[in-house]
Formats: sequence, C-alpha cells, structure tokens
Amino acid sequence: MRRSSRVFVLRTLLWAGLLAQSVSVHAQDNLIWIELDPEDTVYLQLQEGMVVIELNPDFAPKTVEQFKKLLEEQFYRGLSFYRVIDGFVAQGGDESDLGDEHPVPMLEAEFEIDWPRKPKDKDEAKDWAPMSWTPVQKNDLFAAQTGFIDGFPAARDKAGNKAWLTHCPGAVAMARNDDPDTGSTDFYIVIGQAPRYLDRNLTVFGRVVWGMDVVQRIKRGPANQNGIIEADLDRSWIKRMRLASSVDAGELLEIYVADTNSKGFTDLLKSRRNRTQDFFDRKPPKVLDVCQVPVPARLEKSSTSRRLNQ
Amino acid sequence: MRRSSRVFVLRTLLWAGLLAQSVSVHAQDNLIWIELDPEDTVYLQLQEGMVVIELNPDFAPKTVEQFKKLLEEQFYRGLSFYRVIDGFVAQGGDESDLGDEHPVPMLEAEFEIDWPRKPKDKDEAKDWAPMSWTPVQKNDLFAAQTGFIDGFPAARDKAGNKAWLTHCPGAVAMARNDDPDTGSTDFYIVIGQAPRYLDRNLTVFGRVVWGMDVVQRIKRGPANQNGIIEADLDRSWIKRMRLASSVDAGELLEIYVADTNSKGFTDLLKSRRNRTQDFFDRKPPKVLDVCQVPVPARLEKSSTSRRLNQ
Repeated sequence: MRRSSRVFVLRTLLWAGLLAQSVSVHAQDNLIWIELDPEDTVYLQLQEGMVVIELNPDFAPKTVEQFKKLLEEQFYRGLSFYRVIDGFVAQGGDESDLGDEHPVPMLEAEFEIDWPRKPKDKDEAKDWAPMSWTPVQKNDLFAAQTGFIDGFPAARDKAGNKAWLTHCPGAVAMARNDDPDTGSTDFYIVIGQAPRYLDRNLTVFGRVVWGMDVVQRIKRGPANQNGIIEADLDRSWIKRMRLASSVDAGELLEIYVADTNSKGFTDLLKSRRNRTQDFFDRKPPKVLDVCQVPVPARLEKSSTSRRLNQ
Repeated sequence: MRRSSRVFVLRTLLWAGLLAQSVSVHAQDNLIWIELDPEDTVYLQLQEGMVVIELNPDFAPKTVEQFKKLLEEQFYRGLSFYRVIDGFVAQGGDESDLGDEHPVPMLEAEFEIDWPRKPKDKDEAKDWAPMSWTPVQKNDLFAAQTGFIDGFPAARDKAGNKAWLTHCPGAVAMARNDDPDTGSTDFYIVIGQAPRYLDRNLTVFGRVVWGMDVVQRIKRGPANQNGIIEADLDRSWIKRMRLASSVDAGELLEIYVADTNSKGFTDLLKSRRNRTQDFFDRKPPKVLDVCQVPVPARLEKSSTSRRLNQ
C-alpha cells in the first residue's frame, strides 16, 4: 500500500470535490457552537458505546417531563432494544407499548405545536426568546416547508401555523398503540431513510447529537418478524440511561452543537443547495432534503473520547 | 419482565399498525421471488459479517465487467473501508481514487442510460426482453419520476428518455476524482439518508440485497477529517470479495429478491402510499420516497444462516 506517501494527498483532498458531503472550511469557520444543556441531555450507554441525545421540551413538554422522571428512577437500566428493523427504527424499553399494561401514565400526543410558539404563562414570558426558523426547502414530498428550529430538523404546514419535528435519522420518539394517547415509556430511534410518513403521528421528543454510529450497531431483528427479537440475549442492552445533569462533573461530556441560526449554518445550507464544485459534472437540482443535512456537533474534552467509545 | 406471557401479544401485533413499516401479509403473498444470478452476485465478507451485492450490468456494463475482473483477481482481498462517514457513505478499496495513480484502466462514466433500453446488437436482440418500469412517485425533489427497474430503485427525467439508478441506502457506486471518467477500483456503499444530489454524477453499479445491518457496522471515520481513517488497524477490512459463481456449490447462498414487476410488489407500493390503518391519526400524504421502500429479500437455505453471520 502507498499509504504513507499519500497522507499529503489525503489532506489536500480533504475539502475537495470528491463526493463532497462536508461543510466547507469557510462555513465551518462561521459556525457558532452551543454547549448542550445538561438538563436536556441524555447519556444512553449501550454495550456498543455511548449515545448522546438532546431532548426537546419545547415540542414535547409532557413527554420530556415524564421521560426525565423515568431516567431519574433508572427505569431503562437493563432494558433492551427489542424491536429493531434495519433501515427503519430501533425500539427500546420494556415492551409496554405492545400490550395493555402500562407501568407509568400514558402520555397525551404531542405531535405538533402552534407556530409561532408563545409563552404559556407569565413566568415563561419573563425571559422569552422567540423560537427560530431556519428555512431549508419548500414543498418536499411531505411538507409545505422544512427547516431547522434550534438545531432540530422540522417542518411547517402551508399556512405556517403548525410546526413539528421530522422523522429524520437520529430522531427519538415515543412508541404507541393505535390510540394516539398511549405513549408511555418505550421509545424508538430512527436508523434509516427518513420515515417521514410518521411525521405528526408520533411524538418526536429528542434527537441523537452524538454516537449515531453506535446506534447503527444496535442488533437488528428479523425483518419477517417485524424486527422483534424474542430472545433477550440476542438484543442490545441499555447499560444505563441518565440525564447529563445527574452524572458526576468529571463524567460530563463537553458536546457542542452548531447553532442552526448562525450565519455559518445558513452558509452551509447554501453551499449544499448550490453545488458549484467542478466535481459535479451535472449540477444537481438546487434543493435540499432536510434529513440529509446533519447538524455539526463536536466533542471538546479529548480526555473523554475514550470513555465515549467505552 | 413479562416476556414469556407476552409472546402471544407480540405475535398478534406482528402485522398490526404499530409503526407499521412492513409488507402486509396479503402483499407478501402475491410477491414473486427471483433467485439472484450467481454471475451478477457478489459476496463481500467483512470482519463484521457477510454482505451480498447484486450487480447491474444493464446500467453499468463496463464498470461491472471491470469489477468482475478485479473480483477474479481477488483484488479487494485485504483492502479496507478507508473513508466512512456515518449517515453518508462507506468507501473502500486501495485509495487509488485519492491520487493520480490507478492500478487498472479508468472507467468511462456510466451515469445514466437511454430509455427505453434497446438491444445493442443482434446477439443481444435474440432473447431480448424489455426492461420494466414500476412507477413510485412523480416529482420528488430530485427527479421527475422515480420507480423500480428490475429490483433497483431508479429515476427518469421529465421526457422519460434517460434513466439512472438512484443513491438510495445500499447503493453501490464507483468513487472518482473530479473528471467523470476517473473511476477505477474504489467503490462506496450508501449508508445514510439518500444523497440523491449525487444521482447522475457517479456510476451506480449495484445494490446491497442482504446484510445492510453488517454494512452499518463498518467502522466510521472522524467527520472533521472527511471520514478518512488514517490508521489501518482502525478500519473495517475486506476479508474476501468474490463473485457468487466462483464459490463452491456448498457455499452458495440461496437469496431471493422480490420481483418489483409483480402484483405483490405493486400492492406493497399501494399499501405504503395509502396508509389506511387506524394507527395513523392523521393520514400521511399519499406519496412515496423511492428510497424508503426496501425491496423484500429472503435467504432460503437455513443451514447457511450461521455462515452469513460468520
């Protein structure tokens, strides 16, 4: 192999046109980085590694509140991903959504919110900052408008009065039965091509911001059994699932996510919508799939990177 | 856990509305299954397991021809996936596409074909069967028409004169440099949300029909290094990559894929486009993302299932 002599080539080609997916250096420079709030950050420790999830109480306040309580009780410790369909979702918990027994109260659906969101009471009105909308695309197959709302891929209806979080890869949502108000504890993570037909039909309440590669290693179930893995030992287990604010200071991971309102991010969107690189023999249509724009994230504390991979 | 008492519930819910992704029993019944042709089937053996790829000589005759020669020479044995970006692509080979040296002749671009495809000579005309087109969707973001052509997700232009294979998850394509005619040996597999902006800009010449879960376990590179994994030992290695027709009869895997021209498959498309189940509180728009319709595949010989997982 000619690896050593290639290092320079690799480096110079790093931002070149070659299947260019990434942020351009320029756009990256203009990004504003926001540290995750430990009160809305979940550490999901699997046998396969560490996954970090950002919760979204703006879109799913009741679901997030109950989820946090469950984390406090270490509810998910020792539970598993019992229904995993490659290219679709990994579903975990105690399987309560498959039956009629629910260990905790069932949740009202939080499928969408009124837009723009307004403070719900005087208390909230005090330091009220309106939510942002960073537009991505009009009229994709599933929504009149797509965009980002404070880091989350989202969509709005034609009138712009309703907004919802979209089922992009990494979306974390509550499983439920036929009745919309039957979510309780079991959740799923989208691991495949965005199943956008589920939008507004399930409560998306978070997103994976770090460790999606770990999520992709969760053991799959048989497709012809709807992904159900009957034998416990064949499943990927949840070692621990905790709120970041509950861990010791030394265990905290300094994870920053790009501010989707920053100029750096809108530059990034622009460069992906309008691909002018020589590489593109035929210029692609000037469109963007909101689920094909990963929001940059970085881990600051290098000493913890080993722990991340366990 | 209440697992044992739940088995019945699991079974009865198997095809129920719960996040229903799968083929309905009815549609499944009408599927016609086609056995893969060993002359166009590749066994890619990774440390992580076995991946089966179907080649498409109709769309990329020259690329497939050269690729088969490379397989015959065991070219890929001991090479690795050196550039892997989670949510995007896993790229493998000897890194020749990153430099100016190419170990084998460079390939002419085979980005699209004339439609309908016609026999290229008298010999081919003898048992000519026209290619099928099973329509999926008009006017998604990236193409005037999407559909399936003999098992492969594909698209056509507005006039319907050109057809190409789409960059859906599992698509296998040739990497290249800026010049369109510089593909040679290095290839990539799409592992994330379909990067459709690459359509008609790279030669898609196959698709993963089995083992996409294995592909998802390929080790990722650092996002801020454009996915390049510099240290050999950190990469996923190719143990062997062979044409199915070159293996011993006892090693052959009986893999069948659904005929995308069969009524069963068009029924499946219909049931996914028009989701009438009670589960859907709000009926989704009657649209289909061609990359969100996995083509059913099954492995017949159960004795080989252990070998598949190695």
